[in-house]
Amino acid sequence: MSKLCPRKICVVLVDRANYGRMKPVMAAIAGRSDLQLQVIASGTMMLERFGSAVRNVRDDGFTVDEEIYIELEGSTPATMAKSVGIAVVEMAGTFQRLRPDVVLLIGDRYETVAAATAAAYMNLTIGHIQGGEVSGSIDESARHAISKFAHFHFPSTERAAQYLERMGERPDTILTIGCPGSDIARTLNRTLPAWVLSGTGSGAAIDVSHPFLLAIFHPTTTEYGGERAQMQQYLASLHSVGMPCVLLWPNIDAGADHISKTIRQFRDLKRPNWLRTITNLPPETYLQVLANAVCAVGNSSSFARDAGYFGTPVVLVGSRQAGRETDEHVVLSAAVEHEIVAAIRFQLAHGRYPPSALYGDGFVAERIAEALAKLNPYQQKRLHYVQEHASMAIAGR
Amino acid sequence: MSKLCPRKICVVLVDRANYGRMKPVMAAIAGRSDLQLQVIASGTMMLERFGSAVRNVRDDGFTVDEEIYIELEGSTPATMAKSVGIAVVEMAGTFQRLRPDVVLLIGDRYETVAAATAAAYMNLTIGHIQGGEVSGSIDESARHAISKFAHFHFPSTERAAQYLERMGERPDTILTIGCPGSDIARTLNRTLPAWVLSGTGSGAAIDVSHPFLLAIFHPTTTEYGGERAQMQQYLASLHSVGMPCVLLWPNIDAGADHISKTIRQFRDLKRPNWLRTITNLPPETYLQVLANAVCAVGNSSSFARDAGYFGTPVVLVGSRQAGRETDEHVVLSAAVEHEIVAAIRFQLAHGRYPPSALYGDGFVAERIAEALAKLNPYQQKRLHYVQEHASMAIAGR
Amino acid sequence: MSKLCPRKICVVLVDRANYGRMKPVMAAIAGRSDLQLQVIASGTMMLERFGSAVRNVRDDGFTVDEEIYIELEGSTPATMAKSVGIAVVEMAGTFQRLRPDVVLLIGDRYETVAAATAAAYMNLTIGHIQGGEVSGSIDESARHAISKFAHFHFPSTERAAQYLERMGERPDTILTIGCPGSDIARTLNRTLPAWVLSGTGSGAAIDVSHPFLLAIFHPTTTEYGGERAQMQQYLASLHSVGMPCVLLWPNIDAGADHISKTIRQFRDLKRPNWLRTITNLPPETYLQVLANAVCAVGNSSSFARDAGYFGTPVVLVGSRQAGRETDEHVVLSAAVEHEIVAAIRFQLAHGRYPPSALYGDGFVAERIAEALAKLNPYQQKRLHYVQEHASMAIAGR
Amino acid sequence: MSKLCPRKICVVLVDRANYGRMKPVMAAIAGRSDLQLQVIASGTMMLERFGSAVRNVRDDGFTVDEEIYIELEGSTPATMAKSVGIAVVEMAGTFQRLRPDVVLLIGDRYETVAAATAAAYMNLTIGHIQGGEVSGSIDESARHAISKFAHFHFPSTERAAQYLERMGERPDTILTIGCPGSDIARTLNRTLPAWVLSGTGSGAAIDVSHPFLLAIFHPTTTEYGGERAQMQQYLASLHSVGMPCVLLWPNIDAGADHISKTIRQFRDLKRPNWLRTITNLPPETYLQVLANAVCAVGNSSSFARDAGYFGTPVVLVGSRQAGRETDEHVVLSAAVEHEIVAAIRFQLAHGRYPPSALYGDGFVAERIAEALAKLNPYQQKRLHYVQEHASMAIAGR
Repeated sequence: MSKLCPRKICVVLVDRANYGRMKPVMAAIAGRSDLQLQVIASGTMMLERFGSAVRNVRDDGFTVDEEIYIELEGSTPATMAKSVGIAVVEMAGTFQRLRPDVVLLIGDRYETVAAATAAAYMNLTIGHIQGGEVSGSIDESARHAISKFAHFHFPSTERAAQYLERMGERPDTILTIGCPGSDIARTLNRTLPAWVLSGTGSGAAIDVSHPFLLAIFHPTTTEYGGERAQMQQYLASLHSVGMPCVLLWPNIDAGADHISKTIRQFRDLKRPNWLRTITNLPPETYLQVLANAVCAVGNSSSFARDAGYFGTPVVLVGSRQAGRETDEHVVLSAAVEHEIVAAIRFQLAHGRYPPSALYGDGFVAERIAEALAKLNPYQQKRLHYVQEHASMAIAGR
Repeated sequence: MSKLCPRKICVVLVDRANYGRMKPVMAAIAGRSDLQLQVIASGTMMLERFGSAVRNVRDDGFTVDEEIYIELEGSTPATMAKSVGIAVVEMAGTFQRLRPDVVLLIGDRYETVAAATAAAYMNLTIGHIQGGEVSGSIDESARHAISKFAHFHFPSTERAAQYLERMGERPDTILTIGCPGSDIARTLNRTLPAWVLSGTGSGAAIDVSHPFLLAIFHPTTTEYGGERAQMQQYLASLHSVGMPCVLLWPNIDAGADHISKTIRQFRDLKRPNWLRTITNLPPETYLQVLANAVCAVGNSSSFARDAGYFGTPVVLVGSRQAGRETDEHVVLSAAVEHEIVAAIRFQLAHGRYPPSALYGDGFVAERIAEALAKLNPYQQKRLHYVQEHASMAIAGR
Repeated sequence: MSKLCPRKICVVLVDRANYGRMKPVMAAIAGRSDLQLQVIASGTMMLERFGSAVRNVRDDGFTVDEEIYIELEGSTPATMAKSVGIAVVEMAGTFQRLRPDVVLLIGDRYETVAAATAAAYMNLTIGHIQGGEVSGSIDESARHAISKFAHFHFPSTERAAQYLERMGERPDTILTIGCPGSDIARTLNRTLPAWVLSGTGSGAAIDVSHPFLLAIFHPTTTEYGGERAQMQQYLASLHSVGMPCVLLWPNIDAGADHISKTIRQFRDLKRPNWLRTITNLPPETYLQVLANAVCAVGNSSSFARDAGYFGTPVVLVGSRQAGRETDEHVVLSAAVEHEIVAAIRFQLAHGRYPPSALYGDGFVAERIAEALAKLNPYQQKRLHYVQEHASMAIAGR
Repeated sequence: MSKLCPRKICVVLVDRANYGRMKPVMAAIAGRSDLQLQVIASGTMMLERFGSAVRNVRDDGFTVDEEIYIELEGSTPATMAKSVGIAVVEMAGTFQRLRPDVVLLIGDRYETVAAATAAAYMNLTIGHIQGGEVSGSIDESARHAISKFAHFHFPSTERAAQYLERMGERPDTILTIGCPGSDIARTLNRTLPAWVLSGTGSGAAIDVSHPFLLAIFHPTTTEYGGERAQMQQYLASLHSVGMPCVLLWPNIDAGADHISKTIRQFRDLKRPNWLRTITNLPPETYLQVLANAVCAVGNSSSFARDAGYFGTPVVLVGSRQAGRETDEHVVLSAAVEHEIVAAIRFQLAHGRYPPSALYGDGFVAERIAEALAKLNPYQQKRLHYVQEHASMAIAGR
């Protein structure tokens, strides 16, 4: 690789969680002379009502090469599907302009499916972080479809790496293991400033020197229509526990509008003095809150992965993360009030867990950047199983 | 399933080859009282320059519920990617209107990726025919991504079925084996009427009572930019052989315009007296031509699968079908003039092969229809490997 | 026109205001045997955060033939422009399916520009209500562009009719005068139930038996970036007056997010005890509120037109309605706090005005339906001025 | 205007005719230090089957800032409408990136409608060349709609300028008169090299030293479905005349595929020895052919405008240019064989006409560039008629 022509790595960010985990990788890429960072900001990062996380990217000193608006309003399965289509069109145009050598994706969101599809049909080499994991919601199918378009894989766990290989991905394209989110967790100043939970959002003031819960509940798109009842059970359980609680608003998936409406109705009806709702937190601040909560309750994948670094007890609710690999800090619960209450009480009684390195050892980003610099880009994938026949054929000669 | 409310099966057709194989399945669905057929015609089926195959569907007595135009002109990787995006948007709108119980897809084209993506995000149950196969071009990645969105699978071969299971698909969702294309081949009247190859297309008249070649050469999208040189080699080889030859124009994939241009330039330059070019043939007529050719030369997947039913010798050229499961009637060749010539001569010397049932026994469509009537629709997929842990956990108690 | 084949009139609705005025026309169309009503619901009518006005249409007994989601989130000029593009694509698909004889549009919104553009390129005959008026914002250009695509015109005022003719529209295509909104105003039960302003929205309770203001402030898209400062002045003026006030949230135009944010910040900061914010009111309820307010303050076109029927005093703020034809009930004010305050006080001192028939006599809908049944559809428009030359040529023979 | 920050003029090109006329303006812009040229190439300029005119732009030394593919295949009214939608989306994204001070458009094509719509909603100042003219087809409505979005006008004729003012455009925004196409005509080397008509296209060789006809026949979109019959009459008339004839393939409008098919069928059936078909000619070459033809027959707007500069006799066929301002070199004919034949014979008997300056004096481009440098950009348009009231109000004081 000539110094005159560093390899262009185009990072596609589609929500604040993406950015939270990708940030150390972006820094590592930017820090290498043999790599050049390109950044596409898209999805809810662009939207005021999700806190315009694209601003955080710029504030952190990164140049954003393209901003793409792709979310068709409606929060129904049909608008979610159409948003994928719009995103494919827009991503294709952007890739045509930026001409990256490698497109680097993370996670399983629909905007990321769109980026993978566009890149694949444009013969761009795709790297994918967080493949091979298992969960519920449409994200489960999406994640594996992305893997099928991706040329190189950076799975977060050993199990995920094994699964990718079993799915027919070439072993030599599974490059490193560990989620870069662990890097941020490792280096994080875990002291939570008092103003964080009073300076933003609305509702009750949360005293960070006393125990509080962290709550996030996204829709499970494959159970569209059921989210309202689930959310009612979920809020009722938090109400029963009655402990001060920070609730983040849901993502943009189909059903999210119903969840938001349920929260608003609950607030109007019950006027809870224990609840603070917050739209958006910068990545580090979010992790500080997660690290300091006495228990995280809900269905964010972050509770399965990031909470483990800090040993924060978790109650994982419903089927959105079903099948997700978790460490001992996680207790599962159906989206049923009394089960959730019981699980929260169990975790409060248990207290913090020892830190887990299941999802990464905190030194992942540099390894990914190094791998990106060294890999040999290629276009034509092929299900690896056919190699066996080839091998056998050769062996059988 | 109530008789009043038959299960709605929405068949998505995107090119004439799709229709050629899906037709017996459509007939089988239409023939059952517990199923209701819905038909979406899209892709090149809608385009005059590809022969508007949607008319064949109507002529055969099927009702077309929706016609969708999705092809953005340009035949570049970027326009192909954008066409996927447009197709996702349009398919989503159509599914919203038709509200099918099952979306039935076939193959690996980009328009089919779009249909799968839209259906998956709309929580529709997806059935997929021809999953688990291996080839070159972007179709290879696309086919497996579709499998990752599909809920039920109808693979064409035993190997494909095994591959799907190894990829983590639930064994009980792999419903039957065999390509419905074999049904048409089984029932086909193989007598090729003399007018078929003189009444359409342009160039030399082909006397069907004498030996002739069938030639198809599509672009390999992952080698975009190389298709012109490949096509020149390919045409040169046909020119060397000099046997009467029916050449079908390529599909719409990125690079197709370059192939078409190469054909036109070759024709203008060489004025070949052995060459007839044809835009489009109805499915049965195409199979009659394939059944009667002394050798099929090129890179159509039909040469690997359909030619076997008839025992027609095949020279499979280049990497577009690399990894494809084939029977003994196929000889592989690089896209290099003298290799192709040698392979054609080998096949002409060999003559016809015994019929192969590798891709189906000719009784497939009814089995698929039966399976569609009996299956239990579901939304939430999950990588099947996690079941092992569950099983082990239970076993280990 | 055969009884077997009534003329299909396709009404395109894109927001609650559209529906409020179109409703009597829809009823008149539905009531005729020589016309058949088709309804497309689109734009903010489909969105939960704008009150999903499509439900009102269904509750009123109309069948909605197609629901179209077209709003790309972001509320920037670029997302507004892209929403137009998405809408053109979706409208074209819908028209292809519904095959209307006449597409009936109202107003000047971007979603309506999209419908006009799609219909025009599909050779559909277009009727347009509310052409020929003058205002500010991009709506001004949009309205006249729609007129240039429209084949028949139903202007609301005499001046508007004259302007259309001067713009080169054929005099015989300007069919009737008056806004159908006047029909609703005429027949409205003007008693405002007490629960209307307490059962929905949030903030202070409004006692409808005491004087209250009605406030609406939309962005002026051509002044994008200035809406925050304008809104601050506007809210400050309402605060100075301090009278109980119902504020409706703004529409979806570029800049709307900034206005909404300004309202939220104002509420958090000032905790006003005079302010109630409401997302959405059904058309009749809205008119009841307008009829009962002691003064309407803001920049809704409804204040120029509908308020006149009731003689409700109006302060029209800023340039969004600049050039709009108004009756004596309107006082203009720049978007400057002390000017608005002075204008409100002037109107409060003045009290109610006599009813105005400037925008219609209350018997418009039936005339429009009659005209729709009698008109001769045509496709080819031509600037009417060229007829003069033709006439002169004939005269000069 | 600071030297550091020249005004950015974004020229949108959508077909070869656009470029043919815009080229001298682009050169004039590029030649000024107070202006900076931006170029968007789009529409059929991007398509191989229309000769990829974007290459001519680059060959002429201009930088193309963005290439946009927007044509949805199908050539039906619905695909034409959807192409507008796709174009609006793409243009909006491009304008967001290029941030021009003025968007400079020419003509009346649907791609240009899309550019105007996108620019208007993005608050960009729009300049429009060729407004105020009259013709048939949907172009007629489109042209005036574009004028209604445009802020400054550069009409080609005095009549067009008067019409724009009558339509309500502000007189001070109608900046100069004359079509820049006249500049090219003025400076053109009119010697037609012999190889031009033999080196490209297919069919009979044309000897440029002998009399030949130039023929172009585009669809009239508002008569969609009638183009086949019209084209048959048209070709029959050329066949009757039997003079050597260069026929250019039609544009991409709805119906074009039917015209192309009619040409191919005619060629196959009649094997005319007088006919040469050509896909594409560079702008100057096209004008050389037009200048040297003994008669131009068809419905291209170029026959009304450019042919006049050279005094080339024209038979303008059908209604596509109905209402178009023409000079004495034009004879009108219905699309009926014997009428066309008679008109051609009349023109052949008449011979060349004196040059006309109706559409420009050949010194237009510099005046446009000067005007672009001097104008004051603004956003808010308003129908100029309302100024009368304002003036009267002032006068009446």
